[in-house]
Amino acid sequence: MEHTYPFVPYAPDRYDEADMIRAEAGTSSSTSTGGAASASSATSPCRGECVELAVMAANTAPSGAHQQPWKFVVIGDAETRRRIRLAAEEEERQNYEGGRLTPEWRQALARLETTSDKGYLEVVPWIVVCFAEKYGLRPDGGRVKHYYVNESVGIACGLFITALHTMGLSTLTHTPNPMAFLSEICSRPGNERPYILFPVGYAAPGAEVPDLTRKPLSEALVHF
Amino acid sequence: MEHTYPFVPYAPDRYDEADMIRAEAGTSSSTSTGGAASASSATSPCRGECVELAVMAANTAPSGAHQQPWKFVVIGDAETRRRIRLAAEEEERQNYEGGRLTPEWRQALARLETTSDKGYLEVVPWIVVCFAEKYGLRPDGGRVKHYYVNESVGIACGLFITALHTMGLSTLTHTPNPMAFLSEICSRPGNERPYILFPVGYAAPGAEVPDLTRKPLSEALVHF
Repeated sequence: MEHTYPFVPYAPDRYDEADMIRAEAGTSSSTSTGGAASASSATSPCRGECVELAVMAANTAPSGAHQQPWKFVVIGDAETRRRIRLAAEEEERQNYEGGRLTPEWRQALARLETTSDKGYLEVVPWIVVCFAEKYGLRPDGGRVKHYYVNESVGIACGLFITALHTMGLSTLTHTPNPMAFLSEICSRPGNERPYILFPVGYAAPGAEVPDLTRKPLSEALVHF
Repeated sequence: MEHTYPFVPYAPDRYDEADMIRAEAGTSSSTSTGGAASASSATSPCRGECVELAVMAANTAPSGAHQQPWKFVVIGDAETRRRIRLAAEEEERQNYEGGRLTPEWRQALARLETTSDKGYLEVVPWIVVCFAEKYGLRPDGGRVKHYYVNESVGIACGLFITALHTMGLSTLTHTPNPMAFLSEICSRPGNERPYILFPVGYAAPGAEVPDLTRKPLSEALVHF
């Protein structure tokens, strides 16, 4: 396939599932943060326990006032994945073909070659949607204010991604915009808003990803 | 010391620094996400390379349109750490003793026993302040819109924390409120806002942390 930006083969190590579950379930685990970007496609089933272990890792994140304002919805059902694909593509068609994306946004995305085609949402064995609890709910229905929700849930997602990579699984941070359809399809209450959608699975044999470089350390780190 | 909430000893494994740098610099590294919460104090120097490696891990995070909207300011200088401590304590005194914290917020924090005393900011060998780039700056001074800044920077912070734990270092996610003083002390431009402050170091011998439990998997994960 021709690309407008250099692509490289993407074939992360693959481990025996029983081994990787044992490794991740232990107190220490092995991780690679070197490929946190994305896998554009992923196939073949992986055990639900792997996804659960990654959520357990995410669930250890620090959070504002230790309120743990996250919820990970794990979707393996083919029909639900299909509904999510169709709804995401409908929104993305309005973005890409309907002109809803601003020219500036379109330009920022150009080298990633993203389109309204989200077929991978049906190909992957799992979709995990992370929801952020904007506020908590008391048993009597009253609201509990949550603090530093974006920061807390973002960190949890970082731990989730790291755990997946630890196990040799791939993911892609997808934020279909707007994401309200995810609340409806996943039947989430009004205090939760969709934060990031993660397709999860093994990278397909021969998968390619954009050959993105990271900004040099001199632009990421300032000594003081 | 008496606590209103159960505390447990906190003594993470300590490794040889040369070994841990080699491990973290390799393509795969070993991590524990089991103790992502906090260490209330930390002492003894650690090499700046360890902190740099953790920033390098953070810098591999995925981000909206791959804009990498983060900046990690690494502060080892004692005088600057002292300035940060004094400014943070001034803000926190207004929060805790001056009544600026709402009763609800105060209640949410009670079991963590946080106070306006931030003496640990002078004890730790390193303070790392993560700034989020609200927008980018073109060479001509024009603004570049950034997408999903909170999500991107949160994930980067998750990778940063994981890398520190991988190396046996401890940190604490601190968000002194308001945080504007950090922009001034760290001389950051107007497009960056303070996101989280991380004191970084080895846990002090005998350090204790609140014996916080995580919410059960049934509250963190929903199968669909």
